[in-house]
Amino acid sequence: MSSRSTSSSESILSRRMQTMSSSAIRDLLRHSKIPGMISLAGGIPAPDLIDTEGLEAATFRAVESARNTTYQYGLTEGEMFLREEIASRMVAQGISAEPDHILVTSGSQQALDIVARAFLDEGDSVLVEEPTYLAALQVFDMAGAQTLVFQGDQYGIDFTRLESLVANNRIKLMYLVPNFSNPTGTTLPLPERTKLVEFAIRHDIMIVEDDPYGDLRYDGEHVASLFEIAEQSFNSKNRVIYISSFSKTVAPGLRLGWCIPPESYFHSLCRAKQSMDLHSSTLSQYIAGYYLKSGRLDGRLQLLKKAYKCRRDALIKAISEHLPDALELNVPDGGMFLWGRFANGLDASLVLQQALSHHVMFVPGKYFYCEIPDLSSVRLSFSTITPSLADEAVKRLAIAIQRTEQRETQE
Amino acid sequence: MSSRSTSSSESILSRRMQTMSSSAIRDLLRHSKIPGMISLAGGIPAPDLIDTEGLEAATFRAVESARNTTYQYGLTEGEMFLREEIASRMVAQGISAEPDHILVTSGSQQALDIVARAFLDEGDSVLVEEPTYLAALQVFDMAGAQTLVFQGDQYGIDFTRLESLVANNRIKLMYLVPNFSNPTGTTLPLPERTKLVEFAIRHDIMIVEDDPYGDLRYDGEHVASLFEIAEQSFNSKNRVIYISSFSKTVAPGLRLGWCIPPESYFHSLCRAKQSMDLHSSTLSQYIAGYYLKSGRLDGRLQLLKKAYKCRRDALIKAISEHLPDALELNVPDGGMFLWGRFANGLDASLVLQQALSHHVMFVPGKYFYCEIPDLSSVRLSFSTITPSLADEAVKRLAIAIQRTEQRETQE
Repeated sequence: MSSRSTSSSESILSRRMQTMSSSAIRDLLRHSKIPGMISLAGGIPAPDLIDTEGLEAATFRAVESARNTTYQYGLTEGEMFLREEIASRMVAQGISAEPDHILVTSGSQQALDIVARAFLDEGDSVLVEEPTYLAALQVFDMAGAQTLVFQGDQYGIDFTRLESLVANNRIKLMYLVPNFSNPTGTTLPLPERTKLVEFAIRHDIMIVEDDPYGDLRYDGEHVASLFEIAEQSFNSKNRVIYISSFSKTVAPGLRLGWCIPPESYFHSLCRAKQSMDLHSSTLSQYIAGYYLKSGRLDGRLQLLKKAYKCRRDALIKAISEHLPDALELNVPDGGMFLWGRFANGLDASLVLQQALSHHVMFVPGKYFYCEIPDLSSVRLSFSTITPSLADEAVKRLAIAIQRTEQRETQE
Repeated sequence: MSSRSTSSSESILSRRMQTMSSSAIRDLLRHSKIPGMISLAGGIPAPDLIDTEGLEAATFRAVESARNTTYQYGLTEGEMFLREEIASRMVAQGISAEPDHILVTSGSQQALDIVARAFLDEGDSVLVEEPTYLAALQVFDMAGAQTLVFQGDQYGIDFTRLESLVANNRIKLMYLVPNFSNPTGTTLPLPERTKLVEFAIRHDIMIVEDDPYGDLRYDGEHVASLFEIAEQSFNSKNRVIYISSFSKTVAPGLRLGWCIPPESYFHSLCRAKQSMDLHSSTLSQYIAGYYLKSGRLDGRLQLLKKAYKCRRDALIKAISEHLPDALELNVPDGGMFLWGRFANGLDASLVLQQALSHHVMFVPGKYFYCEIPDLSSVRLSFSTITPSLADEAVKRLAIAIQRTEQRETQE
């Protein structure tokens, strides 16, 4: 009987689960544990820049001052204490949010999943940038939705294409990372944000504005969020779901993000979350709350911005020295990623193979595409690459490129 | 434009979200905050019995000894450190589980949701006990599955009905809480467990064994899990997904549970979780790991069992004194719930209305039914009712019943 069960076991998975492949990036990241490996592949905050001292203090405070609640069940929507802190930060950024209408989530990943579940039926369509955040694509895929791509990178948005997509599909959501996007690092300019909001209002599409990197700007001026634009320029409070996270600025290990939906959807999103995990870790919420209350975050952000800008510039400098012609770069104003293309159509996956054997790694850009991948594209994360490491990382990359070119020529 | 958006806003929710009602119990629990209210409605561990001292020590240890990892991203499947501790507890209970095949989840609620997503397509069927855990029904509903009920309470399982359900439906999963179930407190006897496993193997149905209360036995002997029975008696390692939680024994606020699926499904379940929240709180996992390592849990379980048994018995005694004929009780061997029926078909919802105005509350049993609710049934949680409170709680309940009967007679 046991063997019969084994042989039929694959078939009882849901259809979407059967076709869902393992995340290639996740598989790739296992290599980052190899001793001596320099990884430009991750998207993690630098471990050396996490405010462990401040977090420890917040943890102790959470434990001591909230003894009766810290370890107990909490509200699905989150602890009011934390939501008030989030609201005041949001308001300072031009996003008018009442604490009552902020939903605390288990990372922004869960916020995406909640939104997908609350809004998407099988066969619905979601507009996404091409390339875009891989884990968002997985969420939409799990929800049975179809993703339709529009270009949102340095070449600007093709509104003609958007209009034709709308004419031919039942589109419910539009997903984008407007600030220092993952993977391209691009920031959407204000005029295009305004046009997108106008477009979404005209076609009754809900915008999902995913903004985990917004606090990490190194150059240029803050650009108003789509949430703010909708409210200020179009008097619309029903058009944008704003999502952000503490993972890039405070600590990913707390697994805390938040979601600000239009008020009329707040309770539906809560119900979806309730069935998913009842609520997020009470202790994590108290720690984040006390950390924000301590006032250390703004100072930490200054430090993070200075350090990451330095790392970005060091990596760019090393690339311009060691790879002057081999890699075209898109220089971001913030966030964690350089995006580039190998010259002469060199296949990034082949370069990666060589790179791994020379103890350097990155993510081939093709994984971030839904439709037609650019096989030469690469994502290089600079967040964990100290300036002293940048030179060595790029030298190894240069060797890997050279070896790949030699192989290509030989074949 | 704003008003147009508002008017159309409801329609863009997914179909399942539009029909999903708010949890009646959740709404009811808001009353428990009213000063002076005695609540028999919750399903929470007693706040006074949570081992805050041990948890604080574990929290400090987690912060100090895992400085570089505690606040950082972790593996989707969970920290190996914690999985090893869980595995050794499981093995001691007769459940052979390798740490490699234990998936740490954000509470057992998420484990249920992961299983639903990995296995269920719209229109699939799930067998559930009647009555059963409400939040499991919500998860299956969110997955678009149909729930088919079988009786699993004190009257025994109707296997003839089960066979006919299987003959007429495409059933993928069977969900049950075999130990001290929520809401009825019933424990499934060994012979019926064995028959259920045999039935599931014969019909290629996956059993989802939800066991959050198993450690809280006050009377009688441990009954082997369906997981163990499948392996020991049927040599089948592919038939049962075992789910449990730290919420009832350690602390719900950590939001940690675990799931032991057949090996062949482990990676699929990980992929589902990855798209849901990447991983569970790293800090919570270290705290739980250090707490288990401290060896305090077994002592705490002894204390919990003694205290809860006492609370159960005091509530039963108070009921037999003040409500000798008004409430038939099902006495559980463990867990947190008494299940009963008001005599003479008295409607529990009407009693609740009276009860609330006399500052006592409980959950009408009808909420736990999928098909034909027993309107006279009630769930009484004894976990937070100290013996000194039991008398007062039941006296108030007696008045509420009396008032309801008077009203019924008047009408």
